[in-house]
Amino acid sequence: MNWIAAADGPLSEDDFLKRLLITGAAGGLGRAMRSRLAGFAETLRLSDIVDLGTAGPNEELVVCDLADADAVMKLVEGCDGILHLGGVSVEDKFSKILNANLLGLYNLYEAARAHGQPRILFASSNHVVGFYRQDEHIDVKAPMKPDGLYGVSKCFGEALARMYFEKFGQETALVRIGSCFEKPINHRMLSGWMSHDDFVSLIGCVFRTPMLGCPIIWGISDNDSKWWDNSHASYLGWKPKDNAERYRAELEASIPRPEPTSALAVYQGGMFTQDPIFAED
Amino acid sequence: MNWIAAADGPLSEDDFLKRLLITGAAGGLGRAMRSRLAGFAETLRLSDIVDLGTAGPNEELVVCDLADADAVMKLVEGCDGILHLGGVSVEDKFSKILNANLLGLYNLYEAARAHGQPRILFASSNHVVGFYRQDEHIDVKAPMKPDGLYGVSKCFGEALARMYFEKFGQETALVRIGSCFEKPINHRMLSGWMSHDDFVSLIGCVFRTPMLGCPIIWGISDNDSKWWDNSHASYLGWKPKDNAERYRAELEASIPRPEPTSALAVYQGGMFTQDPIFAED
Amino acid sequence: MNWIAAADGPLSEDDFLKRLLITGAAGGLGRAMRSRLAGFAETLRLSDIVDLGTAGPNEELVVCDLADADAVMKLVEGCDGILHLGGVSVEDKFSKILNANLLGLYNLYEAARAHGQPRILFASSNHVVGFYRQDEHIDVKAPMKPDGLYGVSKCFGEALARMYFEKFGQETALVRIGSCFEKPINHRMLSGWMSHDDFVSLIGCVFRTPMLGCPIIWGISDNDSKWWDNSHASYLGWKPKDNAERYRAELEASIPRPEPTSALAVYQGGMFTQDPIFAED
Amino acid sequence: MNWIAAADGPLSEDDFLKRLLITGAAGGLGRAMRSRLAGFAETLRLSDIVDLGTAGPNEELVVCDLADADAVMKLVEGCDGILHLGGVSVEDKFSKILNANLLGLYNLYEAARAHGQPRILFASSNHVVGFYRQDEHIDVKAPMKPDGLYGVSKCFGEALARMYFEKFGQETALVRIGSCFEKPINHRMLSGWMSHDDFVSLIGCVFRTPMLGCPIIWGISDNDSKWWDNSHASYLGWKPKDNAERYRAELEASIPRPEPTSALAVYQGGMFTQDPIFAED
Amino acid sequence: MNWIAAADGPLSEDDFLKRLLITGAAGGLGRAMRSRLAGFAETLRLSDIVDLGTAGPNEELVVCDLADADAVMKLVEGCDGILHLGGVSVEDKFSKILNANLLGLYNLYEAARAHGQPRILFASSNHVVGFYRQDEHIDVKAPMKPDGLYGVSKCFGEALARMYFEKFGQETALVRIGSCFEKPINHRMLSGWMSHDDFVSLIGCVFRTPMLGCPIIWGISDNDSKWWDNSHASYLGWKPKDNAERYRAELEASIPRPEPTSALAVYQGGMFTQDPIFAED
Amino acid sequence: MNWIAAADGPLSEDDFLKRLLITGAAGGLGRAMRSRLAGFAETLRLSDIVDLGTAGPNEELVVCDLADADAVMKLVEGCDGILHLGGVSVEDKFSKILNANLLGLYNLYEAARAHGQPRILFASSNHVVGFYRQDEHIDVKAPMKPDGLYGVSKCFGEALARMYFEKFGQETALVRIGSCFEKPINHRMLSGWMSHDDFVSLIGCVFRTPMLGCPIIWGISDNDSKWWDNSHASYLGWKPKDNAERYRAELEASIPRPEPTSALAVYQGGMFTQDPIFAED
Repeated sequence: MNWIAAADGPLSEDDFLKRLLITGAAGGLGRAMRSRLAGFAETLRLSDIVDLGTAGPNEELVVCDLADADAVMKLVEGCDGILHLGGVSVEDKFSKILNANLLGLYNLYEAARAHGQPRILFASSNHVVGFYRQDEHIDVKAPMKPDGLYGVSKCFGEALARMYFEKFGQETALVRIGSCFEKPINHRMLSGWMSHDDFVSLIGCVFRTPMLGCPIIWGISDNDSKWWDNSHASYLGWKPKDNAERYRAELEASIPRPEPTSALAVYQGGMFTQDPIFAED
Repeated sequence: MNWIAAADGPLSEDDFLKRLLITGAAGGLGRAMRSRLAGFAETLRLSDIVDLGTAGPNEELVVCDLADADAVMKLVEGCDGILHLGGVSVEDKFSKILNANLLGLYNLYEAARAHGQPRILFASSNHVVGFYRQDEHIDVKAPMKPDGLYGVSKCFGEALARMYFEKFGQETALVRIGSCFEKPINHRMLSGWMSHDDFVSLIGCVFRTPMLGCPIIWGISDNDSKWWDNSHASYLGWKPKDNAERYRAELEASIPRPEPTSALAVYQGGMFTQDPIFAED
Repeated sequence: MNWIAAADGPLSEDDFLKRLLITGAAGGLGRAMRSRLAGFAETLRLSDIVDLGTAGPNEELVVCDLADADAVMKLVEGCDGILHLGGVSVEDKFSKILNANLLGLYNLYEAARAHGQPRILFASSNHVVGFYRQDEHIDVKAPMKPDGLYGVSKCFGEALARMYFEKFGQETALVRIGSCFEKPINHRMLSGWMSHDDFVSLIGCVFRTPMLGCPIIWGISDNDSKWWDNSHASYLGWKPKDNAERYRAELEASIPRPEPTSALAVYQGGMFTQDPIFAED
Repeated sequence: MNWIAAADGPLSEDDFLKRLLITGAAGGLGRAMRSRLAGFAETLRLSDIVDLGTAGPNEELVVCDLADADAVMKLVEGCDGILHLGGVSVEDKFSKILNANLLGLYNLYEAARAHGQPRILFASSNHVVGFYRQDEHIDVKAPMKPDGLYGVSKCFGEALARMYFEKFGQETALVRIGSCFEKPINHRMLSGWMSHDDFVSLIGCVFRTPMLGCPIIWGISDNDSKWWDNSHASYLGWKPKDNAERYRAELEASIPRPEPTSALAVYQGGMFTQDPIFAED
Repeated sequence: MNWIAAADGPLSEDDFLKRLLITGAAGGLGRAMRSRLAGFAETLRLSDIVDLGTAGPNEELVVCDLADADAVMKLVEGCDGILHLGGVSVEDKFSKILNANLLGLYNLYEAARAHGQPRILFASSNHVVGFYRQDEHIDVKAPMKPDGLYGVSKCFGEALARMYFEKFGQETALVRIGSCFEKPINHRMLSGWMSHDDFVSLIGCVFRTPMLGCPIIWGISDNDSKWWDNSHASYLGWKPKDNAERYRAELEASIPRPEPTSALAVYQGGMFTQDPIFAED
Repeated sequence: MNWIAAADGPLSEDDFLKRLLITGAAGGLGRAMRSRLAGFAETLRLSDIVDLGTAGPNEELVVCDLADADAVMKLVEGCDGILHLGGVSVEDKFSKILNANLLGLYNLYEAARAHGQPRILFASSNHVVGFYRQDEHIDVKAPMKPDGLYGVSKCFGEALARMYFEKFGQETALVRIGSCFEKPINHRMLSGWMSHDDFVSLIGCVFRTPMLGCPIIWGISDNDSKWWDNSHASYLGWKPKDNAERYRAELEASIPRPEPTSALAVYQGGMFTQDPIFAED
């Protein structure tokens, strides 16, 4: 299936990138995007720290540890777009987060700087603001309140990207992804869910807009219930089309409504706010 | 008629409350809700200071003066939700407002505190901000500018509810109702009108959301013309569906357009701003 | 063609003005409006500094130099609405801008003051904020950053109108028109375009609202991509219906995407920011 | 002692009011003001619900229950300024607050309306925002968060005064007094203390400024530590001169520093946030 | 007298400009500055449309009509700083304001552009915001509300200066002078007064700061009573030292306090808000 | 010398901490504090990665690499206050910053969590906002714009501290130090300088305030010229007393004023904005 058909939108030309690098391509979100982004670039370069299976048509597969500077340098060469989904994506031991999300991100930006500054979409996370309450409506100027080491690493990532933008002109879209799954699977996702199709259309906007700059974007569908305001980024012309509300009845039928005082109901970061600091081995 | 059909929305389960108390159930708005909220609760307990007619299926009727603390204490017992429409709802003598809207509200909150803090929807009013001009667009942080003693009593109510929330955790939705009628009947209501169906869907959102907190919500339909910004409360997922604009042609055909300098055209509170202080007997 | 049909909206009565003056009626936008506004007034008085052709039914044609105070005084007499499109509308020599946009506007407001203060829609321009970046989202409180002498003349016009409002009660809609063409013809217009139909419906709202005040309104269609926030003026009930996005594919097929660092991509004012100061003869 | 000497400031003329009414004159703050405000008016009319002792020169003593409308009507007659300190000033039973602070205030404003609208200084309270944290810095636009029924009654008072201003032009200074004592007596007062002299100079500013309007003013001295921003009211020219910091050493020597999690350290309202609802008899 | 002694501040080097042009040097403010700015530049070039008397040491006198482009071009040549006090400084006929404040200012900026862009201090005016009320506290982001044609011309000037800054890098300080007299002479000036010495120290800061940019600065002394917030411009390090309050007693002794509803007490622009539009001859 | 004498302020009791840990104690700032903080605690535990010389009375010296988790765990044990000056404090290779400022800080917070959460003052830096212009006035809500890898590491630190506060209640003062030297040594420091004495008094406020929370504080003296607004943190009662202006004449006599377009004059981060990314070996 071609995303352009799926999104039913105005973007029409195929292959507007030469080579799009997708990191973290073996993860859940990476796999969902791999199958949808074929039309975006002549070549998809797919990378992960684990095996990626067999290359499809116009695919290049690269196993790469983001903590390995030389490997990342080579990985980025020849790409004119980067969808950076790689790294640790849940709470974990700090040593793992340090390598993948701090050192790994630095390696990626240095490689981009060395190779013509291809535009980057960085998968940041709503967990940079996880300690806001669900009855708060915030925009991107709200000071960060990360809910764990994972969230802190995304704060680092946003700061690093901003510095490369101000200092070197590197453009990045900082997408604070809510929950990008097939469908919402708990009450919190009725507000924070982003459909795969909406993420695809956002990726299209990010790589096609004449000037990107370095915006923060809340990665959510057009949900009836929402906590986050994307109006500052309306210049991108992104109009998500899905709505978590469509799944409410199904969800309410299968999952008990959380108590008003439970972390799942109180905090935007949900249960992440309850994660402990994981001990190193 | 069942509200769920009316709202054509995602809320689907019936009877999500055990017993919903509706105060002021004999008033215009109370009667409109009585017929629509049957599906919300196993039992509707309907209350007013005047007679409520005959109980329908699953209805309990209680004549009660809100100024009578003991009566109110009994009235609230056994309810897990309260739709508080009771009290004086237009400009009146202060003594009447004092009893119904000040003392009465205190009695209600004390009763709720004694009986497990059932969630409350409090019918506040746009008349807490009646002296803003119609060319001003305001949000809930705009300092209050009540347009009469009635409006002042609603300021009191919002403050009281906030205090019970901060101090005791009592959740309340403070709904600043514009004009909740069958349809708009003057030019001012083209901006401030809320349809009965939209109010019903709001009531649904308020009582179903896992965490409510203590939000202020502007009670208006999705009118083309509007003065008030509800984006702070989008976590509730309320999407009103009606639009006063649909009635403009009919209205303009029957009512002369007000002069640009008339209170009806200048102030959000309209003619309420011109009410005198009513003399005590 | 009747605008009401075109806009497919709720405004229905014909001829709600006695005599609507349109200045600059021979220009591109003026001609587009002339054909669409017939239904708004019993008489259209059309004016320009150049010849206006033959009068249609219910049309009055007046050749008039806005810099001529006496002529403008006569021009305005008998009108109960003014659509002021006249004056210089691109960067030009200061002497020309001075006569048409500074002196001419003063003459117009003095004439209006002398003749009962007919409501005015003043065609201001996005070029009062041309030096904001396209990745900035601004509202009408953003301090002005004009991009040339033309833009500066529109800042003057907004200030003059505001003064007449505060001092004398003269109502004016200050419409910062983006690009009001048949369709968007470059990438910048994907954000700043306003369709003729949407302008017509805005004109309807401005002249029909009971109280207008002196609002600034961004003159753009309901484009997916936008830089400007009109929510402060939602009391007018204007809901533009067109969307430049519809033309993106066609536009991208015929025009190369601008470089991220080109003025066309960077500034809201686009290439106007690159205009020189034109020398006097 | 003459307040002008005490304040060491620029106000110099004596007796700028004919008759200043002080309600609550027998209370702690009332007594402190009685001795300091002699120079403000030809006559001080002192009122309280309890005995006021013996009248001094140029003093009139009136025992009056604020809940008695007729008595209040007479009390206000002939006054051109009112310092309203009367009513309940700590947490108490609602019935007492209702009579003194709700009904009593209404009576006062009705009496003022009947008698030429003498300017009023209304002793509001920091307890209208008592549930803000001490590490929050707020201004008068911060939504109210009262910490008890007393605080709620002051919210009512501010709303009532605002309505009389908008509707009838009655001017009032809404002074949210922190703690107006001889000196700070706990750690919280290091931020919220107002000296008697500073209150006197504020009273002078309020009654001498040509136009007062209806401002909210935080009643605090020029303390090094502060939570509240008075810059919006700088048009009054009030410059408090005392500083609670001067008493810190003495205070720290005699009182243990509160725990970081105690209500005294956490909330701007301090221990008021811990008061129960007092039972009616 | 040397301004550096007068200001008693940290600026110490003499003659930090080669040639400072002062326009409007024959006016009241111009004369006050002429005598104080000798130490700022090797040469003072003094200009006005009327005679300037006899040149002092290191002074050049030039009679010049600002509306004469060629004359202004010559006037600016060789200057590395411009203090622009020239033009009409009170309400007047539009034709006079047009020539002096619109055309004249354009001529000045064109001349500056031709001659190396000497830094400019432009005497704007508080009358660009004259219709704000005196109980409003505003900063430079407050939308303009000019109180007459004179005020409108200053709005034009600020816009023109901003455009030259954004487009060509021309630095200007936009000083919204309150009332720069020997001492305050009415109640309104207790808030809006700026002493001559404080203006001198501001001029020093403007011309000495390494980077000026294009700030708006409220030209007022350190008055106890104030309406305007200069904190955004604190990078300049300007600390006015005088205080209109010092003159209050003297002023109150000689002038009756204005009524609360008089324009002098209500509007920041005072009586300017009551000026008519002056008829052309 | 005792800091209390130096600060000439109200804090009076000695030894209000049992054991204060100072990391980075061998650095320039660390040495300046070591000599001044003796009166703050019964014992000073001084730590650095390099030799600290000989222990004075009541001093404990610990050589410790912050990247060594076990060593840091031991270092923190027994302390009830931490002044964290350690780590890399200028632009450097990322590997060094990673170890000292990312891993090192994590180790410190884990140690604090294990040992009773002693209050922490974390030396953050103005370089988290280095890319703001010097003519911008910002507060702590301004989104970060770090000017290099060092600045990015401080963004990380602030995020980490915030997370430990929200999740575990760990209190930290995030002090964005400008330039803490003996005296300002370039024009930029006229705005960003903090005297040693003022830092000492800030340290006193941070450790003595009953509740600290997790505030960001701009570490600057009371300079006439300033870019940063500390009003949000006025609850701490910190009143810096020094003023860089005192050194302007001396500085201007010895250093040429920077050009208006040089990084030193344009950016708050000054020359740091021009640092390259340092290559790894």
